Amino acid sequence: MRAVEWVDDHLRLLDQTKIPHQIEFIEVLKVDQLVDAIVSLAVRGAPALGAAGAYGVVTALDQGKKENWSEKEIEEQILKIRNARPTAVNLAWGVDQAHKLISQGRDQVLKLAHKISQEDEDGNKKMGKFGADWILKKLNKQKINVLTHCNTGMLATTEWGTAFGVIRELHSRGNIEMVYADETRPLLQGSRLTAWELVQNKIPHLVLADGAAASTILRKKVDVALIGADRIAANADTANKIGSLSVALACYEAKIPFLVVAPESTIDLSTKSGDSIEIELRNDSEILEFNGKRVAPLESRGYNPAFDVTPAKYISAIVTELGVIEVSKGETPEKRK
Amino acid sequence: MRAVEWVDDHLRLLDQTKIPHQIEFIEVLKVDQLVDAIVSLAVRGAPALGAAGAYGVVTALDQGKKENWSEKEIEEQILKIRNARPTAVNLAWGVDQAHKLISQGRDQVLKLAHKISQEDEDGNKKMGKFGADWILKKLNKQKINVLTHCNTGMLATTEWGTAFGVIRELHSRGNIEMVYADETRPLLQGSRLTAWELVQNKIPHLVLADGAAASTILRKKVDVALIGADRIAANADTANKIGSLSVALACYEAKIPFLVVAPESTIDLSTKSGDSIEIELRNDSEILEFNGKRVAPLESRGYNPAFDVTPAKYISAIVTELGVIEVSKGETPEKRK
Repeated sequence: MRAVEWVDDHLRLLDQTKIPHQIEFIEVLKVDQLVDAIVSLAVRGAPALGAAGAYGVVTALDQGKKENWSEKEIEEQILKIRNARPTAVNLAWGVDQAHKLISQGRDQVLKLAHKISQEDEDGNKKMGKFGADWILKKLNKQKINVLTHCNTGMLATTEWGTAFGVIRELHSRGNIEMVYADETRPLLQGSRLTAWELVQNKIPHLVLADGAAASTILRKKVDVALIGADRIAANADTANKIGSLSVALACYEAKIPFLVVAPESTIDLSTKSGDSIEIELRNDSEILEFNGKRVAPLESRGYNPAFDVTPAKYISAIVTELGVIEVSKGETPEKRK
Repeated sequence: MRAVEWVDDHLRLLDQTKIPHQIEFIEVLKVDQLVDAIVSLAVRGAPALGAAGAYGVVTALDQGKKENWSEKEIEEQILKIRNARPTAVNLAWGVDQAHKLISQGRDQVLKLAHKISQEDEDGNKKMGKFGADWILKKLNKQKINVLTHCNTGMLATTEWGTAFGVIRELHSRGNIEMVYADETRPLLQGSRLTAWELVQNKIPHLVLADGAAASTILRKKVDVALIGADRIAANADTANKIGSLSVALACYEAKIPFLVVAPESTIDLSTKSGDSIEIELRNDSEILEFNGKRVAPLESRGYNPAFDVTPAKYISAIVTELGVIEVSKGETPEKRK
């Protein structure tokens, strides 16, 4: 099963809004279906959106041929995909890569989309190995207790996962004792998506409130924490899902490793440090309501930053498809060995 | 309005399961109504339960008179109240205090219950003043941004509040800029109860996910964090609602004060340190479900510690009705000036 996959003659998306209770696919035959899927978060996660964007260009070409669109109409439809989530850089990147190849014909575009998808998977698997090797060497024990935050698995990528890919690699080697999965408020990607992926992969796990992570770590139940990244600055400061910083602070106090696992494309050398990363504030209804039902008083307002920035000081290492950046030893993306 | 109040001839409880959307009272005319209210958490919070337990003895005496109970029946009914929540020490304490006075007559028991309630309120108000004085002196600014976790207000006590009482005192002096209220997963006492109390008291506030507290603190939006306590050890280690420790770690890193506000009765000198505080594990359905609807996969299990322990190292001071214990200066409950 893949979150984003080209099947025969069309794009198939695993509908993440239905997980974990139903496994349903969206068969994308028209551009509007893809746009709806992106807007409704049926497909999400930076690498997954990159691949979906590239495949979406093929969808536009195919639909255009069937419905006799003009070149201008095709361009407009592709732009609709590109703008479905304006803040998702990978989506625009995937669309643009594919768009460049249109003059070479539809099959070349499809080939590129496959390549983007395959490279993401290959890169993830390399990260998994680098991360697992690093952890086993560092901890020097055979049964590892991992804590993770948010969802970084197949659902967020195309197939394997970043931080979650390290967990899968450790599990495949027989080295996982227990995975503690933060539920990840407000959108519960941990209890909905990561827990589902842990079940799919038959990995032993416990879901916990985000607020329980610190004491779980300080009480020595966790050997290592693994997170993904939305952006990594030149100095190694890392923006990731809100709540990641709490995990990092607890690991720092407990003196256990805190690892960031992400593709090279997440590193942004033009961002010097976390101070210049703007934090996206999302609608406070995500905090104040649950499943459309109001929890807080109607008069209350919420504060809902989507990400936080973990300063390099609290990061042990960053794992990419090229290897391990030893942040605690002074290495950074801009100063690598 | 009071969470626990004797009105004319009976006990009246504010039904906390209905807050914030409805304000309903439970008129307690029979012992069974009180037991149900305690079990369903319609009344909760250590000091509130102490007062409710004492008043409950009067309820048992009054119902017994009306229904011609034998002495043995009255004793059994009082025991039922005492055991409604076996882990709530204050409940048993309130019942026992009242029980001792039965031989002096029903009116003496009622007088004692009033006294317990009044002393709780008076103690809270003293803490409020001590805490506000300490904060204003320490921070040397007029408009304070406070972060708090869980519910420590009127609903958890009898009238005023502990940590929340300090916020009310600061607000009454015109010194509150903003209160950040952690939603407090899994039971959302922050977004349901604290936010409601903030609305009632017209105090400006924002509700945030527990995972957002650390970055809010490290980004300098918060001047001081205030929490209550479930138990304070002789060395100042403090057990409180799960998630408190994360707040403490962030304050420590941001070098802002982290204050514990609680009555003297919370201090347990027989507990030498936090290491010997057993952490209550609650049912994992609190994590895996929401309003009876399953969130996580059916195959997943949860880890649901109800409390965490904040080591004294991260606590600036403990405020009680007797004054301030300067923990960061080496004072502890067992070594006071």
